[in-house]
Amino acid sequence: MISDLRKWNIGLLFCAMAAWTALSFAEDAKPQAPYEALSKKILEKGLGERKAYALLKDLIAAAPNRLSGSAGAADAVAWGRKTMESLGFEKVHLEPVTVPAWSRGHVMEAYALLSSGKKIPLATAALGGSEGTPPGGITARVAEVHSFDELTALGDKAKGRIIFFNRPMDPTHLNPFQSYGEAGDQRYEGAAKAAAAGGVAALVRSLADHIDEFPHTGIMGYLEKGPMVPGIAVCTRDAETLSRLLKEDPDLKVFLRADCKVLPDAPSANVVGQITGSEKPDEIILLGAHLDAWDLGPGAQDDGGGCAQILEALHVLKALDLKPRRTIRVVLYMCEEFGGIGGRQYATAEARKSEKHLAAIESDEGVGLPLGLGIQSNKKAVDDFQKWLPAMQALGLFYIKNGYGGVDIGPLRDQGTLLMSLSTNPQRYFEAHHSANDTLASVSDREIEIGADALADFAYILAEEGVPPPDPASAHQKHEEE
Amino acid sequence: MISDLRKWNIGLLFCAMAAWTALSFAEDAKPQAPYEALSKKILEKGLGERKAYALLKDLIAAAPNRLSGSAGAADAVAWGRKTMESLGFEKVHLEPVTVPAWSRGHVMEAYALLSSGKKIPLATAALGGSEGTPPGGITARVAEVHSFDELTALGDKAKGRIIFFNRPMDPTHLNPFQSYGEAGDQRYEGAAKAAAAGGVAALVRSLADHIDEFPHTGIMGYLEKGPMVPGIAVCTRDAETLSRLLKEDPDLKVFLRADCKVLPDAPSANVVGQITGSEKPDEIILLGAHLDAWDLGPGAQDDGGGCAQILEALHVLKALDLKPRRTIRVVLYMCEEFGGIGGRQYATAEARKSEKHLAAIESDEGVGLPLGLGIQSNKKAVDDFQKWLPAMQALGLFYIKNGYGGVDIGPLRDQGTLLMSLSTNPQRYFEAHHSANDTLASVSDREIEIGADALADFAYILAEEGVPPPDPASAHQKHEEE
Repeated sequence: MISDLRKWNIGLLFCAMAAWTALSFAEDAKPQAPYEALSKKILEKGLGERKAYALLKDLIAAAPNRLSGSAGAADAVAWGRKTMESLGFEKVHLEPVTVPAWSRGHVMEAYALLSSGKKIPLATAALGGSEGTPPGGITARVAEVHSFDELTALGDKAKGRIIFFNRPMDPTHLNPFQSYGEAGDQRYEGAAKAAAAGGVAALVRSLADHIDEFPHTGIMGYLEKGPMVPGIAVCTRDAETLSRLLKEDPDLKVFLRADCKVLPDAPSANVVGQITGSEKPDEIILLGAHLDAWDLGPGAQDDGGGCAQILEALHVLKALDLKPRRTIRVVLYMCEEFGGIGGRQYATAEARKSEKHLAAIESDEGVGLPLGLGIQSNKKAVDDFQKWLPAMQALGLFYIKNGYGGVDIGPLRDQGTLLMSLSTNPQRYFEAHHSANDTLASVSDREIEIGADALADFAYILAEEGVPPPDPASAHQKHEEE
Repeated sequence: MISDLRKWNIGLLFCAMAAWTALSFAEDAKPQAPYEALSKKILEKGLGERKAYALLKDLIAAAPNRLSGSAGAADAVAWGRKTMESLGFEKVHLEPVTVPAWSRGHVMEAYALLSSGKKIPLATAALGGSEGTPPGGITARVAEVHSFDELTALGDKAKGRIIFFNRPMDPTHLNPFQSYGEAGDQRYEGAAKAAAAGGVAALVRSLADHIDEFPHTGIMGYLEKGPMVPGIAVCTRDAETLSRLLKEDPDLKVFLRADCKVLPDAPSANVVGQITGSEKPDEIILLGAHLDAWDLGPGAQDDGGGCAQILEALHVLKALDLKPRRTIRVVLYMCEEFGGIGGRQYATAEARKSEKHLAAIESDEGVGLPLGLGIQSNKKAVDDFQKWLPAMQALGLFYIKNGYGGVDIGPLRDQGTLLMSLSTNPQRYFEAHHSANDTLASVSDREIEIGADALADFAYILAEEGVPPPDPASAHQKHEEE
């Protein structure tokens, strides 16, 4: 019929589309690799329902603010338990974790005070763990630096100043996580370095790779001994503005007032549930993500989405009535953001003594398009697992390669657990990360679901097939990382 | 210093981050493959400036509405020429194209009229090329169908009805383009089929894979002979609502009023510029994208972003002072959306007789994360080009494989030109495609840039190295596609 269609050459367009489809999927004709049929079944079920997104939406509605130690974090724990129960997971329980607690408080005021008397507001947020300012705030001249070396070179000129760390994330790296790692010292050590140099506060350019109005928070620390001064993040837009103003008016002052403070440690919990293995129930494949999140936004990418993915992974296996030989367990970890507290608690809990964790896969790199699986320090497993690559390719993943596991699952390494992670598209991650911009609007129901389905599929394969033992040849890597 | 940091175990977090970075980039230590150093140089330059995004923003500001044959399309042509000139491209010129023209008009009114008298508004948009309704609109009962077979089975019951095509895009395919292809017949043939069955209009569920409030337009056609009735897209949200209402109230009517109409053909142009080859100027590597766009939104993804990418690709090569042996040409095509009119005009223009187009690469699949390169019907080239894969991997691409070229470059095939496309993340494409939602907000400055840099890199490699001749072994594929 198409050839009869008049006026527009739509035949051409849609033949082209059909050709595109046919060509792109021509490779499906080859014989199926192991577990490839399973991948397709999981994907069909998963994309049909897209429940990972619904779970994330539900988590955010139940506990939009999940800062460790807060009432919202307790809501999230309750939600996790209830959700696992309603999904029919087995052995659903909480494992207690004592977490550091910190309050952002209610006051965060910041502006540049020009020599003319004019005030220019700065969009700021206290860094996690920061001391507050004195009640009346801090008003001081500013020293802008781009490295600790520059700060050291200032010598006495740093004294009494607000130290403004303004080194941007390097935009030229392909992988923004690399840029994040390179710029991160300003955030986590900035206040300590500022204090040691005689400064009165650290004002730190947000770890974001876009110029925008969102301050990005994140963990910082102080030296064991020595003064403590506030550490405050300023959005990239205002970091640029302040830098420009300083060139025009080097004597300008900045006013900072914040009532954040450290609170006593608080009780909380990891949330655990599983499908118990039919043949080897004590051999465990673990899926992990963290329930806590920074409080500026609902933590949709970091890491509410990861929590939703691992819940959906177990759900989709159950919905397909798959009964793995080994146990597949999901752990919603508490308090990743203050240093992986729940992860260490889980790894060292008494109950672990009678269990063997063969592998753990973490989802904590955002829930954008899944790209592949990373395997930490086990070249033999990387090589061996290439046989599962076609199954992963059926889910759209591109690789299984050497990579990093995750903060939460990291402490399992001492037990010989193979550590893995789901790697996703990193290009937009730092638009949202640790800011008010980390919302549901940044999440695609298809992308988050495909990630969940890949986790389901790979966990099931490992639960059926087992995991090679730790690779002695990779021992030097272990050493190098520590 | 990190080990002295107190309170939080931030040492753990940031060591982990450093390990992640180190592990992820450990593979960089191997010897460089051909053009790998060039890839890194291009990427560094490109990501440093992220000019593709700036060009797209500029295009949208200059010509937000680029419907073929419209004043906005003329603005876009002028912008294209001026931009190429300001970027210092060589032999910048326009090649005339006569394009079909159609006006959406100013009236689009649609609602369901319940038996109770209540009106429920429907978010709708005329499909491209549709006739309007009579001035007073159409009020008629509705026949909901999900296929042309269902329509045929209705027989006389279709007469006098508005035919409501409500088959969703299948969400379970990994590749949404496949779902788009499968659901597309409703849009492009729906009005013709409705008219042939005695219907008074076609109301077509938008080709979108999300439930939202955006109607999605796109080309449709009529049969050469026979009645013409309007073809109107309804957003997925309201398609769901209407379907539900019809179950409760099968006698409800729908009112449609639209004053869209076909206009006389209009003059327009393709915009052409290049870097002339230093050794073989008449051998051409072409980069193509289309300047026209549907008028409901600014066409950021389809295909303003593609235009920005190919301009940036040539710009970044010039900025690095790279002088290719063969000519690299960019063509901003006019009127892809009404059937690839500019593409055919370009391929058959008199000037082509003295030129040889070795390869053409199109960017028209959205400007999300680039995933790989598709090569149409040339297995030999696919095999041969694997030697450039490491260079592409340095830009984050994952594959060079059998795929589809593009509508604009398609007509070059008869000249033996190798057709290729930049393949990008398809998972979010149909949220925006052909709707008011196709805006700059959906574009990442990093993702669009990486795509531009990949185009620059691969075009340069081909301009230096040449292209294998057409693959006789792939001739059967050519046949199958036609």
